[in-house]
Amino acid sequence: MDSDIILLGHGSGGKLSHQLLEDLIIPTLSGVPVAGQNDAAVLVQNGERLAFTTDSYVVDPIFFPGGNIGDLAINGTVNDLAMVGATPLAVSVGLILEEGFSKGDLARILASMREAADRAGVSIVAGDTKVVPRGKADRIFINTSGIGIFTHQLDISGANAQVGDKIIINGTIGDHGIAVMAKREGLELETDIVSDCSALNGMVADLLREDGCSIHVLRDPTRGGVATTLKEIALQSDVSLTLHEDSLPLKGAVKGVCAVLGLDPLYVANEGKVLVFAAADAAHRVLERMKRHPLGSDASIIGEVTAEGGGRVQMETLVGGLRAVEMLAGEQLPRIC
Amino acid sequence: MDSDIILLGHGSGGKLSHQLLEDLIIPTLSGVPVAGQNDAAVLVQNGERLAFTTDSYVVDPIFFPGGNIGDLAINGTVNDLAMVGATPLAVSVGLILEEGFSKGDLARILASMREAADRAGVSIVAGDTKVVPRGKADRIFINTSGIGIFTHQLDISGANAQVGDKIIINGTIGDHGIAVMAKREGLELETDIVSDCSALNGMVADLLREDGCSIHVLRDPTRGGVATTLKEIALQSDVSLTLHEDSLPLKGAVKGVCAVLGLDPLYVANEGKVLVFAAADAAHRVLERMKRHPLGSDASIIGEVTAEGGGRVQMETLVGGLRAVEMLAGEQLPRIC
Repeated sequence: MDSDIILLGHGSGGKLSHQLLEDLIIPTLSGVPVAGQNDAAVLVQNGERLAFTTDSYVVDPIFFPGGNIGDLAINGTVNDLAMVGATPLAVSVGLILEEGFSKGDLARILASMREAADRAGVSIVAGDTKVVPRGKADRIFINTSGIGIFTHQLDISGANAQVGDKIIINGTIGDHGIAVMAKREGLELETDIVSDCSALNGMVADLLREDGCSIHVLRDPTRGGVATTLKEIALQSDVSLTLHEDSLPLKGAVKGVCAVLGLDPLYVANEGKVLVFAAADAAHRVLERMKRHPLGSDASIIGEVTAEGGGRVQMETLVGGLRAVEMLAGEQLPRIC
Repeated sequence: MDSDIILLGHGSGGKLSHQLLEDLIIPTLSGVPVAGQNDAAVLVQNGERLAFTTDSYVVDPIFFPGGNIGDLAINGTVNDLAMVGATPLAVSVGLILEEGFSKGDLARILASMREAADRAGVSIVAGDTKVVPRGKADRIFINTSGIGIFTHQLDISGANAQVGDKIIINGTIGDHGIAVMAKREGLELETDIVSDCSALNGMVADLLREDGCSIHVLRDPTRGGVATTLKEIALQSDVSLTLHEDSLPLKGAVKGVCAVLGLDPLYVANEGKVLVFAAADAAHRVLERMKRHPLGSDASIIGEVTAEGGGRVQMETLVGGLRAVEMLAGEQLPRIC
């Protein structure tokens, strides 16, 4: 019976999400240029490339340490455009509001959207507002879609990982998911964990300008976390990856809350992190450049592409063992974005 | 107290929607090129124009005579692009699903989206799926955003109505809203009213190709109906309009249900209708061309632009009086799209 209905896990970004996409959504909607599992679709129009992406945000709570559903929605879509190497140009905002929602809260959220858009240098150009009766939605859901343009000829894609590439992340993992979860569970006063919610387009543009030819893959490890995202890339590029647990940047407080809640930080969502796959000879330059950016001070090389084929991700653990890393199964943190 | 919360009427497309947009949403999100109250924003990039639009769909029931939330979502966004004279290029699909939603219903809806996209000649290129726990959404909400390109230099805008322009509609009014409402109220077995849900881009392209220079405004009278849409155009173009009640195409069955439910068909949503403002000397040619198209067989000239300034809409009634037409106040039909 369960197989006939939608489960929470179908929205996890993990294994069930991929199954729903591959078994139902893509084959039905497709026969068309599907996004090829990159964060944004790349269209070619009159010889010019154009990036196009969409995301809906249903995060609960709507206000959390370090952000709210509004700046999350702007940053998330800006980041999806940046992850294919595009320069974000314009964003649309679709609001679904529950009757009775506070106008004051709406005003705060909209102000955050505007500030986030200004910071990212993107214009909000189109919008839509729907209202549903009380009990038919949970306060506010936001869709943001975005258009990006290309100022270079680089081909950045999850399909481009190459043997020898180093895997670099710009900072600590799990901050967003744990900040949201701590707030939801009433633990936020006991921790100082803040979401990493931020726009990565500026830092990414710096990296591409200086070392673009050495950068093969960019992807932000949101739903499903670093583990699921790396597994996606391994499958898409048909390569095998190795991670080094001792090099994973992780805040002590995040580790602590993960232990309390029984969560693995490798599967916890980030909203201001990017995984960069860079050719080995450029990797340290990319790392140093990242570290000079405010969003990259805790950057680290966390692994490498070890072999062609296989689509496997394994992690060298702190005690020296090898652990197979799979996609998130089920849903450990619903409504994290 | 009520002024501090969101009301159903804020999603009506009528007066409250406009107040929320003008008092809160646009001033907060703006300082940016707002959509200028057209159905899609027009961006200029490298000298080329690009149209961009977004809409969320929360219609209840999700299946109704003549369509469902899926083809409605595709057609609605295709039409918004067509209303600025753009050729729809690509559409994104953002799904918000309630835990427990039927996969079978999802499959039917997705299949309708694909068929609608194929009919309209547009590709679905990007998507996103979120799932919220039971009771936190109502089965399925869909956002579609769309990109359109321009194959001509025409400037089609709600700001371009000119004195003397004839107002043409491609068929009967209120069919969509009443089909949805009849289904919701359990009246559908007593009527044969079917939603007019359809993609208008083909018909609009025909009109623009042949008489583009004479066509000043295109707008689809969705939420708020013909009355609200004409009032918007009158204000945006700063002109006054006169409608002729005896020339409004209206099905007897729609009139009947409106009488039973106490609704005015002039305020009921359409999803396959376009209001065309055409120069007087071309209006009959445009009308005849429309009538030759399958979506325009009941087309009619329903009024004209009578004066500069004023922003007024008045209707010559069947008994010969003059009635002032204002925007929809409150919400007569929640969740109609």
